Amino acid sequence: MAVILITGGARSGKSTRAEARARSFAGQPVYIATAEALDGEMQERIARHRARRGTDWIEREVPLDLVPALLSTDGGGARLVDCLTLWLSNLMHAARDWEREVRELADALPRLDSPVVLVTNEVGLGIVPDNALARSFRDAAGIMNQIIAGVADEVEFVVAGLPMKLK
Amino acid sequence: MAVILITGGARSGKSTRAEARARSFAGQPVYIATAEALDGEMQERIARHRARRGTDWIEREVPLDLVPALLSTDGGGARLVDCLTLWLSNLMHAARDWEREVRELADALPRLDSPVVLVTNEVGLGIVPDNALARSFRDAAGIMNQIIAGVADEVEFVVAGLPMKLK
Amino acid sequence: MAVILITGGARSGKSTRAEARARSFAGQPVYIATAEALDGEMQERIARHRARRGTDWIEREVPLDLVPALLSTDGGGARLVDCLTLWLSNLMHAARDWEREVRELADALPRLDSPVVLVTNEVGLGIVPDNALARSFRDAAGIMNQIIAGVADEVEFVVAGLPMKLK
Repeated sequence: MAVILITGGARSGKSTRAEARARSFAGQPVYIATAEALDGEMQERIARHRARRGTDWIEREVPLDLVPALLSTDGGGARLVDCLTLWLSNLMHAARDWEREVRELADALPRLDSPVVLVTNEVGLGIVPDNALARSFRDAAGIMNQIIAGVADEVEFVVAGLPMKLK
Repeated sequence: MAVILITGGARSGKSTRAEARARSFAGQPVYIATAEALDGEMQERIARHRARRGTDWIEREVPLDLVPALLSTDGGGARLVDCLTLWLSNLMHAARDWEREVRELADALPRLDSPVVLVTNEVGLGIVPDNALARSFRDAAGIMNQIIAGVADEVEFVVAGLPMKLK
Repeated sequence: MAVILITGGARSGKSTRAEARARSFAGQPVYIATAEALDGEMQERIARHRARRGTDWIEREVPLDLVPALLSTDGGGARLVDCLTLWLSNLMHAARDWEREVRELADALPRLDSPVVLVTNEVGLGIVPDNALARSFRDAAGIMNQIIAGVADEVEFVVAGLPMKLK
């Protein structure tokens, strides 16, 4: 089934775009949140996304084990994964082998029976960060985006709410 | 009349592009600067923009009350607003309700008799900023860009002086 | 001969893209590295790039004197300059007149007998940096990209490994 990657900057409208793409497939859509509501800022963001989406989605919180979650619930409406960048951050924070898990995701995506729409972030278009950890993270995010874009059927880059077709 | 939004990064050539678009309309163009010459770095930037534009523009400094300024002087040549990101920053600094004012701008733009070219910045494509204020600002800038792009007739994303058509 | 500029963010796949473009021309390609292996992070990056490219390239390290290097070795296969942003940083660090040298490069490029593929970075799409030096650098990088894009025959913007044609 279709694998669609939606990338863009912070508050570029990529989640809204991804929701529209996920809704365009038949069946009840499944929202897979990689965020955990650990602080007030994140709780507010999650609540805002939920209010916009409406109540007709199946919701799951999957901060780490994304591939098992996709495989174990495969079938039916589209999966919306929002977002890969936070998943990557969670993997790195948990000291997991992020590059191996990203490649496992890339292997799994084309074999799923459900359409999957994945949201990710561009984080490498600013000045080089001062601290090594932030540099490592933006390098990892760039590598992940290349790997997932490589297996995606469609890739869109969203700026100011408007999608540009990359693939 | 036409509403044209030009977005891009720092020193991407978006002001030069916006000036060319504004000049393409009949009538004397009006340059609406949202910058205030508060320090040497900003004075130098304002002087450089002015030298490039030439002297055939009507010039106005409007750091905050952009909607009243557009409404009270409507008619004639194109308005060039440079830039919305600085206007947003001024609104937040003055503790004004920026989201309400952005929506008022979005309401006013399609009803003007003058063509309007607006310059804005993409600020959300780098690593997540450390401090909460910077995060709030980049969120606000992204939301503003989506709202204004939504009512614009044309949106261009400028990279290395070259425009990509988004809308 | 063709002058091709490849721009994009960190780890966006721009070097891989530039290598493919350089290989598409007849003759042995020449890799002109502007990086110096001054620390472990940079050594690791250089080694990784070399492993990917393979051993059939002529390799040169040119941290500063890019225009003389291009002129003195002109002829034969494509030149790949990776990357201009680091060259700019080296020029500024050495207190050289970077704007003059960028303009000399822009003058020289269209007159070379070898095709040239140049890699550069977009660094101006994040939040405004706190420190003045970083602001100066991102301004300079934006100006350089506009100047070189102005003389290039082709410009591509790479996101997630996928090129968008700007020119």
